[in-house]
Amino acid sequence: MSDLVAGIDLGGTKLLGLAVDVATGEVVASGRVPTPTGATAVVEAIVGLGEHLRGEVADAGHRIGAVGLGAPGLVDRSGTLRYGPNVPGIVDLPLAAVLADRLGVPAAVDNDATCAAWAEHELGAARGANHSITITLGTGIGAGITVKGEVLRGAHGFAGEPGHMVVDPSGPRCPCGRRGCWERFASGSGLGWLAREAAHAGEADGVVARAGGDPEAVRGEHVTSAAAAGDPGARIVMDRFAWWVALGVANLVNVLDSEVVVLGGGLVEAGPLLLDPVNRAYGELVMGADHRDPVPIVAAQLGERAGAWGAALLAAART
Amino acid sequence: MSDLVAGIDLGGTKLLGLAVDVATGEVVASGRVPTPTGATAVVEAIVGLGEHLRGEVADAGHRIGAVGLGAPGLVDRSGTLRYGPNVPGIVDLPLAAVLADRLGVPAAVDNDATCAAWAEHELGAARGANHSITITLGTGIGAGITVKGEVLRGAHGFAGEPGHMVVDPSGPRCPCGRRGCWERFASGSGLGWLAREAAHAGEADGVVARAGGDPEAVRGEHVTSAAAAGDPGARIVMDRFAWWVALGVANLVNVLDSEVVVLGGGLVEAGPLLLDPVNRAYGELVMGADHRDPVPIVAAQLGERAGAWGAALLAAART
Repeated sequence: MSDLVAGIDLGGTKLLGLAVDVATGEVVASGRVPTPTGATAVVEAIVGLGEHLRGEVADAGHRIGAVGLGAPGLVDRSGTLRYGPNVPGIVDLPLAAVLADRLGVPAAVDNDATCAAWAEHELGAARGANHSITITLGTGIGAGITVKGEVLRGAHGFAGEPGHMVVDPSGPRCPCGRRGCWERFASGSGLGWLAREAAHAGEADGVVARAGGDPEAVRGEHVTSAAAAGDPGARIVMDRFAWWVALGVANLVNVLDSEVVVLGGGLVEAGPLLLDPVNRAYGELVMGADHRDPVPIVAAQLGERAGAWGAALLAAART
Repeated sequence: MSDLVAGIDLGGTKLLGLAVDVATGEVVASGRVPTPTGATAVVEAIVGLGEHLRGEVADAGHRIGAVGLGAPGLVDRSGTLRYGPNVPGIVDLPLAAVLADRLGVPAAVDNDATCAAWAEHELGAARGANHSITITLGTGIGAGITVKGEVLRGAHGFAGEPGHMVVDPSGPRCPCGRRGCWERFASGSGLGWLAREAAHAGEADGVVARAGGDPEAVRGEHVTSAAAAGDPGARIVMDRFAWWVALGVANLVNVLDSEVVVLGGGLVEAGPLLLDPVNRAYGELVMGADHRDPVPIVAAQLGERAGAWGAALLAAART
């Protein structure tokens, strides 16, 4: 009987953990806890979730042989979270070393979206593609890239952070201090911003109604639900949003020449309402579209478990 | 005695060819001819330059065993130039096959800026860096990327084309049909545009004087010469230009996490007048600058021969 691997996804609001059998693809145990605040509490929550998974699988006679963690932010090659704007209070936290010490098994840590990308590459929508980009559209934008069938880590482990590509220097301010970062437009927050702009211009009354009549209360989910119900104003906002998504995808394909682009995150549940206009706009935005092979832009397949699955797979490969 | 390799750089205005001894780094012969118009004439010019190099080295008792070509545009993995906006009339030209047939030796073809990047990686400013980006600032912007010490070719061979990243959707029109591509701001043409904007705003009288008093006649070289002479208006334009260069560099480092960024092309002769403000602005534009290792942005070392040298080196490795 081979050891299982624990994969844990550290999110801004919750920690999701899986204990998986990498060889068979079976999920033997799972668990989730809210993400606390501060480095010490976060470490305790991760360790606690790891211990929980260990206890669950022990009942079935299994052991956990390694642990993988996906963390939001810049994770260096040693597994230290150098900078994570979405987990306040954490800077230069040597997570791989701490988890290996506390859990007593080898540990690997990488960026959360990189983990999700690796899972989509191994088990999901990017399977079979040597060159892929998986983009997670959440509150912000995360991404992971594969080159020649391997994760692109870059010189220090920080590769795959296109959310802060500046795509409009006169655009809205970003919490990072710059203006017009891609994630100001093409994330869940970006969809809300585009919708509020449309609402103030009187273009999105159906969306405003779903937000209780207050344009300032409009969020991304009001757009997606109104668009799904056929509201024309919501469809206009979705098309604008899709254009911004496609702009960043085209920028990335110009640089990376990938075979497939996978979009993940809750927004992708909008399905063709999002993917169709993204694919159309991409064809107008990528360089030399008439002279290059088409690049399908498709929905992720692994849902909210992608990050934890990818963390487990990377841990299995690296430890 | 080992065979030599011919490397030829197909530019918008000229063809530059070298016959090199890859093992010793010696250039045994060289030649240049103007770039003619149309696919047939271009092929004849390349073949003629190859024959010229062969004749030159034969006198010294050498043979040419392979030929490499750098071509501007999208070159696929089979060595076909699929699309080259700067060599009008050429679409889907199978250059590697044609050159191998006509010159009777194995031939390899890649993007010209990719060739230059490979030469800088092997012999120049990116030596020793596994993850590098070399950006050629010419009339447009070309680039080549290395990942793990190898050229990043991408799925089809088209990787490394950041010049048409859209960085300002409300910016000036690009010949490619989009607006606000990076090369509209950060190339030689971009410098001219920024200078003309400054001239019309009355901010660059010293630059206008060098252009004969006509703001519309201002070109990039008027800015660099005036800036070198200490003209304050020219320095302002150079700083703006450097900011746009840095913006694209930061976007690329966010995605690729390279160790070094090399800037090539004639503009780099401006030296610290360009490189100092680029390095300063980069620190403000890259994500999480305070939490990541610095990335030096440096001048290319191989000058106008980089493309031909890189074509020879790639041919030696691939044929």
